[in-house]
Amino acid sequence: MSKTKAPRRPRAQTPKGFQDTFGNEVTARNEMLRRIGAVYHRYGFDPLETSAVETVEALGKYLPDVDRPNEGVFAWQEDDDKDWLALRYDLTAPLARVAAQYRNDLPSPYRRYAMGPVWRNEKPGPGRFRQFYQCDADTVGASSVAADAEICAMLSDVFEELGLAGDYVVRINNRKVLNGVMEAAGVMDPADPSKFEDERGIVLRAIDKLDRLGEAGVRALLGEGRKDESGDFTKGAGLPDTAADIVLAFTAARRDSGAETCAVLRDLVGASVIGAEGVAELEEMAKLLEAQGYGSDRIVIDPSVVRGLGYYTGPVYEAELTFEILDEKGRKKQFGSVAGGGRYDDLVKRFTGQAVPATGVSIGVDRLLAALAAKGRGAEPVQGPVVVTVMDKARMAEYQAMVGELRRAGIRAEVYLGNPKNFGNQLKYADKRGSPVAIIQGSQEAEAGVVQVKDLVLGAKIAESASLEEWKARPAQVEVPRADLVKTVRAMLDDTP
Amino acid sequence: MSKTKAPRRPRAQTPKGFQDTFGNEVTARNEMLRRIGAVYHRYGFDPLETSAVETVEALGKYLPDVDRPNEGVFAWQEDDDKDWLALRYDLTAPLARVAAQYRNDLPSPYRRYAMGPVWRNEKPGPGRFRQFYQCDADTVGASSVAADAEICAMLSDVFEELGLAGDYVVRINNRKVLNGVMEAAGVMDPADPSKFEDERGIVLRAIDKLDRLGEAGVRALLGEGRKDESGDFTKGAGLPDTAADIVLAFTAARRDSGAETCAVLRDLVGASVIGAEGVAELEEMAKLLEAQGYGSDRIVIDPSVVRGLGYYTGPVYEAELTFEILDEKGRKKQFGSVAGGGRYDDLVKRFTGQAVPATGVSIGVDRLLAALAAKGRGAEPVQGPVVVTVMDKARMAEYQAMVGELRRAGIRAEVYLGNPKNFGNQLKYADKRGSPVAIIQGSQEAEAGVVQVKDLVLGAKIAESASLEEWKARPAQVEVPRADLVKTVRAMLDDTP
Repeated sequence: MSKTKAPRRPRAQTPKGFQDTFGNEVTARNEMLRRIGAVYHRYGFDPLETSAVETVEALGKYLPDVDRPNEGVFAWQEDDDKDWLALRYDLTAPLARVAAQYRNDLPSPYRRYAMGPVWRNEKPGPGRFRQFYQCDADTVGASSVAADAEICAMLSDVFEELGLAGDYVVRINNRKVLNGVMEAAGVMDPADPSKFEDERGIVLRAIDKLDRLGEAGVRALLGEGRKDESGDFTKGAGLPDTAADIVLAFTAARRDSGAETCAVLRDLVGASVIGAEGVAELEEMAKLLEAQGYGSDRIVIDPSVVRGLGYYTGPVYEAELTFEILDEKGRKKQFGSVAGGGRYDDLVKRFTGQAVPATGVSIGVDRLLAALAAKGRGAEPVQGPVVVTVMDKARMAEYQAMVGELRRAGIRAEVYLGNPKNFGNQLKYADKRGSPVAIIQGSQEAEAGVVQVKDLVLGAKIAESASLEEWKARPAQVEVPRADLVKTVRAMLDDTP
Repeated sequence: MSKTKAPRRPRAQTPKGFQDTFGNEVTARNEMLRRIGAVYHRYGFDPLETSAVETVEALGKYLPDVDRPNEGVFAWQEDDDKDWLALRYDLTAPLARVAAQYRNDLPSPYRRYAMGPVWRNEKPGPGRFRQFYQCDADTVGASSVAADAEICAMLSDVFEELGLAGDYVVRINNRKVLNGVMEAAGVMDPADPSKFEDERGIVLRAIDKLDRLGEAGVRALLGEGRKDESGDFTKGAGLPDTAADIVLAFTAARRDSGAETCAVLRDLVGASVIGAEGVAELEEMAKLLEAQGYGSDRIVIDPSVVRGLGYYTGPVYEAELTFEILDEKGRKKQFGSVAGGGRYDDLVKRFTGQAVPATGVSIGVDRLLAALAAKGRGAEPVQGPVVVTVMDKARMAEYQAMVGELRRAGIRAEVYLGNPKNFGNQLKYADKRGSPVAIIQGSQEAEAGVVQVKDLVLGAKIAESASLEEWKARPAQVEVPRADLVKTVRAMLDDTP
């Protein structure tokens, strides 16, 4: 026999950095998104679903001076007109495109929410995926901070709806206040906004490291610079000590009440007009939220929120879960941030030339799912189906009739459709499916007009731990008339905890 | 002043062949998918969500002898290892990959459902999009036609669940019966399966055109060939008249009952072993479905189902909506096919070398949505929010308190967040949002402790058609104490049809 080379088979492999989601995990995510969507809906937000694909120019993802898209996106060139297309990398860029494209048709302000996967062309790593879900709500066309306050209130309601009352806090800061602080610290000149840009960049990056470096480390970066453990030197912003004090006082300005915090901030920004504007915005938001009954246990003004300050133009907000989990080294730590957002006024301008005010939030769906699972607040695990076993292949029609009855009674049920020869395999299958109940009817039972109904949940418990008394008191398998099938199964399911 | 060229702005444009889905349309699709998912769940099917991206080799979409993916998919090359990735073009290819990859962990048989967008790199046209939704259910690892019968029963239940009872029929055919008919017609030699392959291809394409060409046209294609109106000649399969009779009798074999139809088919396939096997499969399916109470008004054996016969290996099924709609020329026609499927036993083999039996169905989500809309069975249009208008910007906190109360009472509500100067714009906004009720409180009302509650639905009706009596009997705007806000709004909403 001549040996011919077999053609190479394709690998059955999820592409690197992507993942497959099965059963309960799909259900849990859908259920969480449904509950979040219900809150967004109550606030008057409308769903929007754009396609996964955008033009690279609409995404703004061309590399500068290069005719190729940024490597951060998955992109390809059209066959005909050579346009570049790409998968969206967030839900904000498509919103900006939609807000520009349909500006004459959409209500203004336009409140919209969006849920779905986004794609990042990044090196995959442990827990870092190249496709993941986002769940966003944004208001386009409202310049009032009432829109920002509304998003914060809605975010708070989302956590309450998800059963996380008492376990979260929404924290608010404001980019304009930071600008005022920069002015007071001498690295912002309102008459020449581009002056000190480098210094301000260093200040932003420095305060963003407060958690990691502590006050001393940040103070070094605000001043001459900082040498890290490895001996590497990072150049600082060159602020004198008095100016560094102002910046650090800003991040530590949180007091017991919003009014007190705002008073501290007002002092810090001194004569800065933009700073005063930012403080007034925080005060207005505090007033609006208080009027709706959101106490500082739920939503709080906290200038230590620094993430996103470089990107957003006004109010910035972040939601944190405050309960503790164990980190990879077994130490307790707060669960941390699960949502963030703020005001960005330039996104639509890219398309139309007109500035359109916008503010919005993005919820990290996967982190929030993990949090719900950690708190036991996720979707109930889905119960497996009742399995009707096949003792006699020739009587398949009767087994199908049984599942038909069960399903019509609203009970999840299926016939075993594998090779029925080995009955043990059928019970193993039922176990793998998490089935609560198995139905058995051999030829003897059929002749006698009865079925065996086996309580698999109870059976598993008895096998595990029950005493003889319990076993006797409640048998895990009963024989009942065929006509009582549905009734018996239902009673058994109702008993299942 | 020197004139500098402004940088070109990006176009705010949905990419060609893609679409944006807004508000009610998103809700209607989600609601339909939820209802279909509930039926799939009741049948024991588990959700699976794979990523949008697969390797091109897993999709099997390399062009023969070319190192580039098929143009039918959106594909790109990885930056590092030069692997080609692509967007999935259906939900079956990812299932085959998953069934192979997780074959040791998944229950067997594995019943799974999947819902989501798929992508086709095709020339877009009117009503033809390059991203669209599919909703599939498949059973992998069950060789028995009980699995096929189950899918047909489930499909029937889906239409009942969607309120389409009496408006649909699931039709079943079988590829093996067609093979038997081919044998009887002399274009299939069981001893040499590759013989007459060309002729069989022509026969398959010919019967697929029965709807369009009628019996005479198909007979010509089965015989020497056919000249169309333009004078172009299509070569035929070269069957003698007696053989063409057998093929045409196959497509017309449907009788009043499944048993009668099967008797006709048994005659037609004559001595063909594979043909007899196909007829036996149809008989078995008929028996199983009858045992579950699915009459021929819901599921019927109908050999005129020819779509997919070239692709599937055993049972083939199709669901049609039977009510009439008007076509683009105003003529009545049946709505037609909205789902199709069948048995395919080779998909997993590509990966593992082992044949794994599989059967499944794909529902055309967009066509089914259109059908539901045509029958008035879609999701209820979503009601717009109650709009609290802003008469006095300084009192925003009080307006926010009002929406807060309404939302806590479960009522969808929002404050107008645009520029409040022009009150007419606020009412126009409420109209655009489909708001049922507007709340108005100026400074006079505030001092008096009252609010105006305006019934916009009734108001629109009165403006349109109501007589003076009706107007008098039920005013479209009432002034109530501030404390009665929620109560009054709720009563008004309950009155809204």
